[in-house]
Amino acid sequence: MDPNTSGLEQKLAEAGQSHLLQFWKELSPKEQQNLFQELQGLDFQEINGFFKNAMETSSNSKHEKMDGRMEPVPRDVLGSVTRDRESLKDWEVKGLDCISQSKVAVLLLAGGQGTRLGVSYPKGMYNVGLPSHKTLFQIQAERIVKLQQLAEQKTSVKCCIPWYIMTSGRTMDSTKDFFSQHQYFGLGKDNVVFFQQGMLPAMDYGGKIILENKGKLSMAPDGNGGLYRALGNQGILDDMQRRGVEFIHVYCVDNILVKVADPTFIGFCVQKGADCGAKVVEKTNPTEAVGVVCKVDGLYQVVEYSEITLATAEKRSSDGRLMFNAGNVANHFFSFSFLRDVVQKYEPQLQHHVAQKKIPCVNAEGQLIKPEKPNGIKMEKFVFDIFQFAKTFVVYEVLREDEFSPLKNADTQDGKDTPTTARHALMSLHHRWVLNAGGHFIDENGRRVPAIPRDGAGGTDDNLKDGTDLPIKCEISPLVSYAGEGLEALVKGREFQATLMIDERGVHELVKNGV
Amino acid sequence: MDPNTSGLEQKLAEAGQSHLLQFWKELSPKEQQNLFQELQGLDFQEINGFFKNAMETSSNSKHEKMDGRMEPVPRDVLGSVTRDRESLKDWEVKGLDCISQSKVAVLLLAGGQGTRLGVSYPKGMYNVGLPSHKTLFQIQAERIVKLQQLAEQKTSVKCCIPWYIMTSGRTMDSTKDFFSQHQYFGLGKDNVVFFQQGMLPAMDYGGKIILENKGKLSMAPDGNGGLYRALGNQGILDDMQRRGVEFIHVYCVDNILVKVADPTFIGFCVQKGADCGAKVVEKTNPTEAVGVVCKVDGLYQVVEYSEITLATAEKRSSDGRLMFNAGNVANHFFSFSFLRDVVQKYEPQLQHHVAQKKIPCVNAEGQLIKPEKPNGIKMEKFVFDIFQFAKTFVVYEVLREDEFSPLKNADTQDGKDTPTTARHALMSLHHRWVLNAGGHFIDENGRRVPAIPRDGAGGTDDNLKDGTDLPIKCEISPLVSYAGEGLEALVKGREFQATLMIDERGVHELVKNGV
Repeated sequence: MDPNTSGLEQKLAEAGQSHLLQFWKELSPKEQQNLFQELQGLDFQEINGFFKNAMETSSNSKHEKMDGRMEPVPRDVLGSVTRDRESLKDWEVKGLDCISQSKVAVLLLAGGQGTRLGVSYPKGMYNVGLPSHKTLFQIQAERIVKLQQLAEQKTSVKCCIPWYIMTSGRTMDSTKDFFSQHQYFGLGKDNVVFFQQGMLPAMDYGGKIILENKGKLSMAPDGNGGLYRALGNQGILDDMQRRGVEFIHVYCVDNILVKVADPTFIGFCVQKGADCGAKVVEKTNPTEAVGVVCKVDGLYQVVEYSEITLATAEKRSSDGRLMFNAGNVANHFFSFSFLRDVVQKYEPQLQHHVAQKKIPCVNAEGQLIKPEKPNGIKMEKFVFDIFQFAKTFVVYEVLREDEFSPLKNADTQDGKDTPTTARHALMSLHHRWVLNAGGHFIDENGRRVPAIPRDGAGGTDDNLKDGTDLPIKCEISPLVSYAGEGLEALVKGREFQATLMIDERGVHELVKNGV
Repeated sequence: MDPNTSGLEQKLAEAGQSHLLQFWKELSPKEQQNLFQELQGLDFQEINGFFKNAMETSSNSKHEKMDGRMEPVPRDVLGSVTRDRESLKDWEVKGLDCISQSKVAVLLLAGGQGTRLGVSYPKGMYNVGLPSHKTLFQIQAERIVKLQQLAEQKTSVKCCIPWYIMTSGRTMDSTKDFFSQHQYFGLGKDNVVFFQQGMLPAMDYGGKIILENKGKLSMAPDGNGGLYRALGNQGILDDMQRRGVEFIHVYCVDNILVKVADPTFIGFCVQKGADCGAKVVEKTNPTEAVGVVCKVDGLYQVVEYSEITLATAEKRSSDGRLMFNAGNVANHFFSFSFLRDVVQKYEPQLQHHVAQKKIPCVNAEGQLIKPEKPNGIKMEKFVFDIFQFAKTFVVYEVLREDEFSPLKNADTQDGKDTPTTARHALMSLHHRWVLNAGGHFIDENGRRVPAIPRDGAGGTDDNLKDGTDLPIKCEISPLVSYAGEGLEALVKGREFQATLMIDERGVHELVKNGV
């Protein structure tokens, strides 16, 4: 464990990273051991190469706006839940068919850290305060359980949707423990496969790796596009092949409404013969901070909102919609063969993106610094970087209020994408399911509550001042309904008082002051 | 002042309202005088008639949903800023032409009380915290000033846009004082005309007028539809006629983005030969709490969100848009002759709407009660109740982010329609004006700020975590630009650091820690 005799010192010197040992003599033996191991595990020449390429790509692209090269998604590769209603049933049947043959897997991107949410544990373990107190992981797991049942009911064949969960170094152990404690939510231990995305060190603008403290490098996950490298080097592709997986649904842990393995989306992609598909929501406000799926120089990609001018963001088609309105929600379809080609051939060609950050660090005098402006970069790949390699790319547009409500910020922040908005989005969806299945809600005076509760957003609602500001409290277990189906027998013609909970044990009205 | 000898006691007895005198003997002489005057001013037979009719209409309509009778706005009566771009310039020219001939007046509905906003003074006097500290009244006044200038520049003819301001009993004095203190914001005292909407007592479900305390009735403004009665009985119609007003733009005080006397909207309505028009924004989420303009039994009206079923709210046209998507924003066009007919012929036929409320009151024992559930009703008419009488009704669809951001709630509430959202909406619009005129913003490190700042709403913005959560601080005085015009000479090719203020004195960059 001597940096000199082991060759580490020389390796660092050759890579211009000798400063990483500058506090070596001040470290305890235990700290020395940890740092030694961390440094031994890294390929500094590779990291320096990543840095050089990423910085070059970044500075080349900086002065050149995308605008002139962008084209919107053509109608013929677009499926839409609002504009293609007549096809939805067919697509769903097709998707359920694939699921029943155990050809569909789900892949969860759960490597991010809940920094903005203000928690130290994985986001999937967050309880947004639903009546059931379910976590995001449990909600998603139960949707998979239910979907397996729905597919089995159609075909009377037992099937399985394996669930691949990508964590990062910091979230792996707690994630695994959590699933084990909860008996994998009924999915079976063998069908929940954990793997770990890579980490990369943060660098200063001169290419020096940043020390977080005297004995530790500043490391961060390599972006959700780290997926592809991890799929290869951790044997996940092999596992998929062994199981006969042909289609993979990839999504991000923070969306409480996510339709995991959505059969309609999968059926649409399969019927279109797509190797790659993106689920999107319509962007309706030009300055909304969301990336858009479009073509650039003839190839599909996601253009981030920070990359375009206002003039482009404001462009409209003749139907009045924004021209670039395919809002990316990190929800994708891949064929297995496409994913294999990506891992083996395409991904290594991609450069990392540069994210300028304020990175806490130790300075040359050994003092801990919390910088006030960006002092370095993190290097990341994005899951959508590979769209450009697709041979048949499709886009599937869904309704935001039905399928997208991400959990990003703590409730104390600006009120967007918080536990409260996530909880309200789910309860509002389930409220609508009950109404559409013929149920009704009444208030404490026995009066029917209007289908659309006041939310304070209207322009002319002063006459309804005494209405409630909150959505109807209503939660339906995914084990009862995946997407609103099967509720008539439970609710049709009945009147309920909130809080209404429907789960595998039945229909419950929770007393206001109880629970 | 004796209730008995004056005949008041008998008048009350005949109207079944004798309870209003039940605490008479406990009142001081001053309190007796006030109550006596209040009661003498009311027509109890008329009020009882309002109550009877309103309750009948309300209970008849309760069980009968609108859904089957609703039709969407046909395309041929719809103008749209996104779908009729080629016509916008023509409409604007037409509107400016009408303005330059002093044919256009503006009518402001400012009678509501800022209860939900948590202030005791009129909403128009609220300062939402802009860099300039301007109030809603000042912003609107300056838009009128600017529009007069723009019209004059086109035609070299001096013109005037008279401003009629409807207040209620509670807001009249403070509103008038405020305008007087500010020299009518340059509009000229004679061209700002105040008038007062009526008040009606709150009633219990049995038709008894509610006492707020032992010596005072519970009174409330009679709804923004009280406009029509007030126009007649306070000589406003006559004033309009004397001035030669032919077209009136009516709007509500709480919308910080309101394009007062919008020439494009007016030009569209005039060119269509409309007697009545409604400006709308597209409703994109079925459960958004906004009323929609549509036809019911062949006549135009606003159907409130509480009146329709979810199934109807979710209906879509073949283009994927919501079928009933013309979201009402209390922003209307009337021809003078239509308004005159309404006041003289149609309005008296309309029943009041019933709003069930929790009304603080005094009980039979003289104790003050704050009820926990609704204990009575307020009676209101709505400004849009008269759409049904229009011979040529048109609808004009604008962009929410450009034209609608109402101030309704205090900042401590649920984060919708607050001073913060209003301020951000205005600064975001002005930021876009600067960008579209060729200006740029840079951060404190001299780097260009992306055109679309992060707002936390995106799905894939984790790579931009260090961006600012706030909109660019930028405010442009209406005296410089009414709708984004005329800014090139001031900003084109220049780089600015926030806070940017552009006013009649020039272009200012405010130091971060200053002001």
